[in-house]
Amino acid sequence: MTLKVNQIVHHEKSQYQDVLIFESSDYGMVLVLDNVIQCTERDEFAYQEMITHLGMFSHPNPKRVLVIGGGDGGVLREIVKHESVEEAVLCDIDEAVIRLSKKYLPGMSVGFQHPNVKVHVGDGFKFLEDKKDTFDVIITDSSDPEGPAESLFKKPYFELLFGALREGGVMTTQAENPWLHMKLIAELKKSCGEVFPVAEYGWTTIPTYPAGQIGFMVCCKDSSRNVKKPLRSLSEQEEDKLFRYYSKQVHEAAYVLPKFAEKALR
Amino acid sequence: MTLKVNQIVHHEKSQYQDVLIFESSDYGMVLVLDNVIQCTERDEFAYQEMITHLGMFSHPNPKRVLVIGGGDGGVLREIVKHESVEEAVLCDIDEAVIRLSKKYLPGMSVGFQHPNVKVHVGDGFKFLEDKKDTFDVIITDSSDPEGPAESLFKKPYFELLFGALREGGVMTTQAENPWLHMKLIAELKKSCGEVFPVAEYGWTTIPTYPAGQIGFMVCCKDSSRNVKKPLRSLSEQEEDKLFRYYSKQVHEAAYVLPKFAEKALR
Repeated sequence: MTLKVNQIVHHEKSQYQDVLIFESSDYGMVLVLDNVIQCTERDEFAYQEMITHLGMFSHPNPKRVLVIGGGDGGVLREIVKHESVEEAVLCDIDEAVIRLSKKYLPGMSVGFQHPNVKVHVGDGFKFLEDKKDTFDVIITDSSDPEGPAESLFKKPYFELLFGALREGGVMTTQAENPWLHMKLIAELKKSCGEVFPVAEYGWTTIPTYPAGQIGFMVCCKDSSRNVKKPLRSLSEQEEDKLFRYYSKQVHEAAYVLPKFAEKALR
Repeated sequence: MTLKVNQIVHHEKSQYQDVLIFESSDYGMVLVLDNVIQCTERDEFAYQEMITHLGMFSHPNPKRVLVIGGGDGGVLREIVKHESVEEAVLCDIDEAVIRLSKKYLPGMSVGFQHPNVKVHVGDGFKFLEDKKDTFDVIITDSSDPEGPAESLFKKPYFELLFGALREGGVMTTQAENPWLHMKLIAELKKSCGEVFPVAEYGWTTIPTYPAGQIGFMVCCKDSSRNVKKPLRSLSEQEEDKLFRYYSKQVHEAAYVLPKFAEKALR
């Protein structure tokens, strides 16, 4: 898998990472952080819709929602599709990602324009410290565990999330690919399961991520909740209007893993 | 996506195509035909199991099974896992693929060793011409539609398959990736649907195919058959022993497509 670069649109070293935006021949604009593709205009919806709606449709009535990371705005764009949402807060450590996304990735950064959105530039750990029983859903849209996001894949972080969620709250976090990172996923599921009574792994296809897929941990504070089935659902017409990847059938199928992965997590 | 070449193991121009086998750093041995990766030892099971078992488990009692293409032997290996099978015939046009697979890809070519297997080297079209009401399942394990396999993606071929299948027979054929070939898939489904009363598209993940996935058309002569659900199923223990990718849950989830693909095929 290679992307052809038509032109480099922007390149800077931010306070935290190397930020590159280029225009590709076949995948539109591409955002790259520390040499890893974060999103392309052509397939970003698969990631943004799935990391968002697997969590959001597992909550009966999400009013306050938090995004940790997600500075491109794509997850915000998806969150505000849920009419119950009264406040969507985004906390990203790197203002450069937000600034450049607003300039070069309008299809994603449109999420910042919604009146219910609030943006906080800063460290997710610090932001969460004094937030208790505050959010219904928290989505961690981070980069990979090697690098600045490493601590977002560990138990102390999941404990912070647990505390910041209200009763019945749901959290979703980026969780790598079974074809490449089965050991990491098994450890993640174990860590999450020690904090949350419900901790499930689902996945989506996405061509520009390594090996063509990416997964998510979806966890809930309510032990009776089955996150593998959507709690709420829309009509086919509403789904057609709102989504390009997600549907209620896609929600359920996302939790069906190849035999080798299902066995490893059994 | 790139594979690192440890060493070129074999390279020849056969009568039909360029055949290359190399040892990769992380994916084991790799078979390449006309510069397109056909299979790697690390992930071939995803393709071989899914193209085979989506069809085989949609038939109540498959006794005679035909593979067109599939010279690496991997589909044969999967077919003979079904105890009902009395005869599995493989027809590949290129003896070089069979010969080199037996030499360098033992994990796949093990399929040739089963006593119920018969091999015919020749053109699939010609082989099918005088076969009427002969097979319960026919699997077309071909290369991509650009090149020598082009005719295997067209209606006259599907009509030949229809005639060669017994009552209630099932056929499966390689059918590309919705992320890359949605227009082709829509045309394929239309062509298949003009010949077979049941024509469904399912897919699997596989890291070394373009964009990380590949799909299949699964068609049946019996209009009452729902190929999206397995007709027969095994216990979890039996599945664990036989499969690394397929399971009855995976069978059903394979037919759930992203909204954009589901809409395009609606």
